[in-house]
Amino acid sequence: MPPELRAAVVQDAGTERVLMLAWMDEEALRLTRETGEAHFYSRSRATLWHKGETSGNTLAVEELRDDCDGDAILLRVEQRGGAACHTGRRSCFFRRLDGDRWVVVGERVFDPDEVYRR
Amino acid sequence: MPPELRAAVVQDAGTERVLMLAWMDEEALRLTRETGEAHFYSRSRATLWHKGETSGNTLAVEELRDDCDGDAILLRVEQRGGAACHTGRRSCFFRRLDGDRWVVVGERVFDPDEVYRR
Repeated sequence: MPPELRAAVVQDAGTERVLMLAWMDEEALRLTRETGEAHFYSRSRATLWHKGETSGNTLAVEELRDDCDGDAILLRVEQRGGAACHTGRRSCFFRRLDGDRWVVVGERVFDPDEVYRR
Repeated sequence: MPPELRAAVVQDAGTERVLMLAWMDEEALRLTRETGEAHFYSRSRATLWHKGETSGNTLAVEELRDDCDGDAILLRVEQRGGAACHTGRRSCFFRRLDGDRWVVVGERVFDPDEVYRR
């Protein structure tokens, strides 16, 4: 991971739900500030990423917070389109530990095969 | 960063506030599951870390969630002692972006010079 990447925690400002964890470089932070919509850095694709550019599920940023040691950013957002996760769920954190098993608890809002088809 | 580290988002299960962003390796996750108290991996000290072992501000874990791509964990916790941040604030995310300036918005709950003195 490039040292300049920061963890970006995305929280719904209305429901307070934590939606996703993404990554930001300086360019992603600058574009987020300038446009008011969340931009991230994709580690797997090694490129800047405007969240929702394909799915339409953009994130309108209501508040940005920095943390004490400068390795994380908190984005409080209004979630447009209803689903932050590429699997079609509101939150990427849809598996809960129940004893020794991870159990799926999040309902799908959209079908990813419909939204991401080429 | 070792590839096996995951970002650990800590959220207060009562107030829903995001308290901090830390890092977990497999050992930190195992100890967290076994003890019910948050353990992390300190990147700066390159060692396992039981949150609150010095300050008494431990985090009792009510729920653990995994994310879609396996690079983050969400811990929903009960915050003991009132402050998650080593600066003495409830949350590490105590600076809010206001125009072009980061403004401190979090009040101190304790004085770190008192708590961490040797």
